[in-house]
Amino acid sequence: MADLQALVDGIHADIAARVERGRVADYIPQLAVVDPRHFGIAVTTVDGHEYVAGDADVSFSIQSVSKVFTLTLALGMVGDRLWSRVGREPSGTPFNSIVQLEREQGKPRNPFINAGAIAVADVLLGGHQPRETIGEIVQFVRFLAGDENIAIDPLVAKSEADTGFRNVALAQFMRSFGKLDHPAEHVLGVYFHHCALAMTCRQLSHAGLFLAAGGRNPATGRTVVSRDRARRINALMLTCGHYDGSGDFAYRVGLPGKSGVGGGILVVAPGKASIAVWSPGLNENGNSQLGSHALEMLAQRTGWSIFGA
Amino acid sequence: MADLQALVDGIHADIAARVERGRVADYIPQLAVVDPRHFGIAVTTVDGHEYVAGDADVSFSIQSVSKVFTLTLALGMVGDRLWSRVGREPSGTPFNSIVQLEREQGKPRNPFINAGAIAVADVLLGGHQPRETIGEIVQFVRFLAGDENIAIDPLVAKSEADTGFRNVALAQFMRSFGKLDHPAEHVLGVYFHHCALAMTCRQLSHAGLFLAAGGRNPATGRTVVSRDRARRINALMLTCGHYDGSGDFAYRVGLPGKSGVGGGILVVAPGKASIAVWSPGLNENGNSQLGSHALEMLAQRTGWSIFGA
Amino acid sequence: MADLQALVDGIHADIAARVERGRVADYIPQLAVVDPRHFGIAVTTVDGHEYVAGDADVSFSIQSVSKVFTLTLALGMVGDRLWSRVGREPSGTPFNSIVQLEREQGKPRNPFINAGAIAVADVLLGGHQPRETIGEIVQFVRFLAGDENIAIDPLVAKSEADTGFRNVALAQFMRSFGKLDHPAEHVLGVYFHHCALAMTCRQLSHAGLFLAAGGRNPATGRTVVSRDRARRINALMLTCGHYDGSGDFAYRVGLPGKSGVGGGILVVAPGKASIAVWSPGLNENGNSQLGSHALEMLAQRTGWSIFGA
Amino acid sequence: MADLQALVDGIHADIAARVERGRVADYIPQLAVVDPRHFGIAVTTVDGHEYVAGDADVSFSIQSVSKVFTLTLALGMVGDRLWSRVGREPSGTPFNSIVQLEREQGKPRNPFINAGAIAVADVLLGGHQPRETIGEIVQFVRFLAGDENIAIDPLVAKSEADTGFRNVALAQFMRSFGKLDHPAEHVLGVYFHHCALAMTCRQLSHAGLFLAAGGRNPATGRTVVSRDRARRINALMLTCGHYDGSGDFAYRVGLPGKSGVGGGILVVAPGKASIAVWSPGLNENGNSQLGSHALEMLAQRTGWSIFGA
Repeated sequence: MADLQALVDGIHADIAARVERGRVADYIPQLAVVDPRHFGIAVTTVDGHEYVAGDADVSFSIQSVSKVFTLTLALGMVGDRLWSRVGREPSGTPFNSIVQLEREQGKPRNPFINAGAIAVADVLLGGHQPRETIGEIVQFVRFLAGDENIAIDPLVAKSEADTGFRNVALAQFMRSFGKLDHPAEHVLGVYFHHCALAMTCRQLSHAGLFLAAGGRNPATGRTVVSRDRARRINALMLTCGHYDGSGDFAYRVGLPGKSGVGGGILVVAPGKASIAVWSPGLNENGNSQLGSHALEMLAQRTGWSIFGA
Repeated sequence: MADLQALVDGIHADIAARVERGRVADYIPQLAVVDPRHFGIAVTTVDGHEYVAGDADVSFSIQSVSKVFTLTLALGMVGDRLWSRVGREPSGTPFNSIVQLEREQGKPRNPFINAGAIAVADVLLGGHQPRETIGEIVQFVRFLAGDENIAIDPLVAKSEADTGFRNVALAQFMRSFGKLDHPAEHVLGVYFHHCALAMTCRQLSHAGLFLAAGGRNPATGRTVVSRDRARRINALMLTCGHYDGSGDFAYRVGLPGKSGVGGGILVVAPGKASIAVWSPGLNENGNSQLGSHALEMLAQRTGWSIFGA
Repeated sequence: MADLQALVDGIHADIAARVERGRVADYIPQLAVVDPRHFGIAVTTVDGHEYVAGDADVSFSIQSVSKVFTLTLALGMVGDRLWSRVGREPSGTPFNSIVQLEREQGKPRNPFINAGAIAVADVLLGGHQPRETIGEIVQFVRFLAGDENIAIDPLVAKSEADTGFRNVALAQFMRSFGKLDHPAEHVLGVYFHHCALAMTCRQLSHAGLFLAAGGRNPATGRTVVSRDRARRINALMLTCGHYDGSGDFAYRVGLPGKSGVGGGILVVAPGKASIAVWSPGLNENGNSQLGSHALEMLAQRTGWSIFGA
Repeated sequence: MADLQALVDGIHADIAARVERGRVADYIPQLAVVDPRHFGIAVTTVDGHEYVAGDADVSFSIQSVSKVFTLTLALGMVGDRLWSRVGREPSGTPFNSIVQLEREQGKPRNPFINAGAIAVADVLLGGHQPRETIGEIVQFVRFLAGDENIAIDPLVAKSEADTGFRNVALAQFMRSFGKLDHPAEHVLGVYFHHCALAMTCRQLSHAGLFLAAGGRNPATGRTVVSRDRARRINALMLTCGHYDGSGDFAYRVGLPGKSGVGGGILVVAPGKASIAVWSPGLNENGNSQLGSHALEMLAQRTGWSIFGA
């Protein structure tokens, strides 16, 4: 499939020529120092091919992209009971808004906004110590990607723990409604660490492949979730994966995806491929600006949109 | 495709046996008198077959399903300039909420909440009289469905005009922000009338077929929109088509759809079929309760979900 | 009491020298044309003296100051039953906000925000025609002021009716919650007209004198309300009389007052005097900027603050 | 003044006979165990008399009443610069709401809601350790009351620190907007401790006397604040002292006051007296139910309302 490689190279060239790259996240000091000129892309198809370009093998902080993996792990642990803890609706507000939480008595709208992922982290703790749960998450992501070289960046985790006051506020607020089972400090310990996972585009596209292939990673041969659950996770990514820019991403790209403030985006083309892009500059909704452009080009040129042949 | 007919019949039988049917909309007197026991389903495939069951040929008030058609018409008139008037994001609030409008200075979040459809109606007026615009909308829907027997129910339109105070408030509120070009009364005249379109499930599935077939209605042979635009309308239906239940619908059904408080839902299975269901009782989000169930069964059994093969 | 006249003259001189006068209301065309350099002040003491300066005998549109009079009239008609229709709490939001109405199901927070005064107008209608109720309000204000030369400015009333979309939205919104007994058009007819009352500072200070004198106007000898009710209306003016600037006005002036977007403010010094000022330029909360300054000086120099001798 | 003693005794007798006493605060375990049948009242006049009844010499947790004292102390430290940190407007929302904080970027509306008092505690820290600031507050309250026997209840302080998740959320949220100068833990240490001050009604009425007497405590002869500042603190108590029940309290009682969830209320009758009441059961706004009733009776019978002779 030489075409796909040419396509990926073309996107790389196009992005490289862009001047306006968005704004690198500065609310975590460790993220603010990343060079905005990075760009990576990796496409892993369900039939076993890989197409990469740019900094596809440079690690970056996946941040909120990790919420896809913690959600998958939590669904594996408690199944649909998870939905008593967190909703499945787009929030209509920024990723770190607390207003909705007050209106809905501490139940977050979906697992991909910060409050929702904190609720998922609380479920993952399940009575254990944060260290154990963090270890379990790392193992799970390694298992998904079939790659033992994935780890948490401790500096990023610490930076987030030192400065993530808004997330502390969200957790304590939920706690005040009796919506956390564990101390907020423990829950945040898990949350800050899984957000600090460092991965390359290539690794990320591997880790998401099970969602493109009906729940089973064809590269490793291991079934992760049922076909039905894979679909449902994809649906959540489509409606809620880009905070208050989810509608726009669906409109322009037409594929389920999840972004992180580190500038990474994981996208699923069901039946086709798992795609990861990385460009650190963000748009006004906190999603990678050039990453979104790259994916729009990819979707356009492959015709992979889920909204029409 | 005997299977699909058997499937549709099976769904009909299942729904007929249900006791809990939701609550018929009572905020418009003319809707409140509809018998909650009605159920209809019509599946029109892109290769030209029809599978119907129940009251598939009984007319009902399509209400907000009409917003798909007015959006399509407005995009045809002004193209992407429409997006300066209305956003593309899920609202995170009930269909008739006014709170978001105040926060965002009178610009509605998307074309499928009431305020957004009112903005679209304002665009459709384009300096003309309401009567002309209403006529144009009816002609357009007839053209989409290839059916001259589609008309507005004047009693429903009047009932809505007499009691739709909330919609009047939304329009006047937008006007107060300078966000309507025409008098609120004219805009609402258009809005109340297109919501009062009476159609059968069969007609509705015909009218939506172009969205399942890349923008061209294979039954009439007429191109309505480009392939790209068809995809984008589908994306909007997926993220915003069911008010504050859009995430749940995507999660459970996995197909773009648009519901109306008359109990109808139009659903698009890209590349496969256009589906219309009708059951008057609504769930707490104002979407047809059994209609949603029927579509969940259909999606499950056909595997038509856009989120995974 | 030569001192009080000197004091009033001193305030007039101080205000005349100010350059920064705020911004004349422009949302009603008829208000926008008023010369911002006007300034009037009138102090009528409970023992029968008057001290005026500047344009104290020039008529202006009293706008929301009229809400004190309609509240008084409504309390006379239905007594404490009024409080089932409108609350008694500061709103914490701008004068024309609709957000609180949605949260509290169409019941306005207090009778001095627009929505609350609309609810009061609905009560005043009491099954009659707007024309009759408007006549009754005019008669009541004449009775309060002991002055038959008070009338409504029909151009302002019309201007408001033509452009007051926000108020139409508020009324229709309340109607949609079943919180108006009469058609919104009738209620707004009353509201727009009483807001268009034209009065001079002298007339306004006369009309408010009953509130400074325990419910009885000493100039006319007529009892308007009980001593208790006079206190309570004063309390409402203190906590809610200046929209989202009520706290600041209480802090700086320390007297119950009610402002209007025409630039007038009526203030009550219980046991002492009734004061009216007028300066058309408004501050960011929609209250007369120099009028507020003038009253702060007056309170400072007289020691009339209710918060301490 | 035998009358005032008889009046106070009469109020005590009336309250003792009431069955419906409201609901004791249960969000802090240490408060939940207080006997709801307590009732105390103490009236200290500016001319040096005391009239007490019931449990006037039983200590209780003054909770938010302490905010009057910390505000006074902070104004003494930084003067009007305090208003860059906190507003002066009623909030229009419950005492612990976080919604307004998000809308106004972390600046609390007034010093008497929890967020506002947390901002004041941050100012009081002024670079010192919490222990020092807490000591300073205790000394200040002893100075105000002329009573060395006032202390913090350490069990209440600890109970609050262990369970006050909502206040932690408020502080961390403000921190996330850069609106706290010190670590949230330090600020909350101060806040939780001053809320845990234990005082009797008699002590509390002594401590508030300076506000009734133009800034100088006549019993101790010491000037606390200027006459002007005393007035302004009274104004803030009137508009903001009872959370979202401030308007109602002004309407019914007509005196500046500050309530606490321990069931205490401090009220100021300028030029007349300082009054403290205590009854642990709260109404729906979190203010002492019978305490409010007692004060309404007192105001009615003394004619001390600031809103009219």
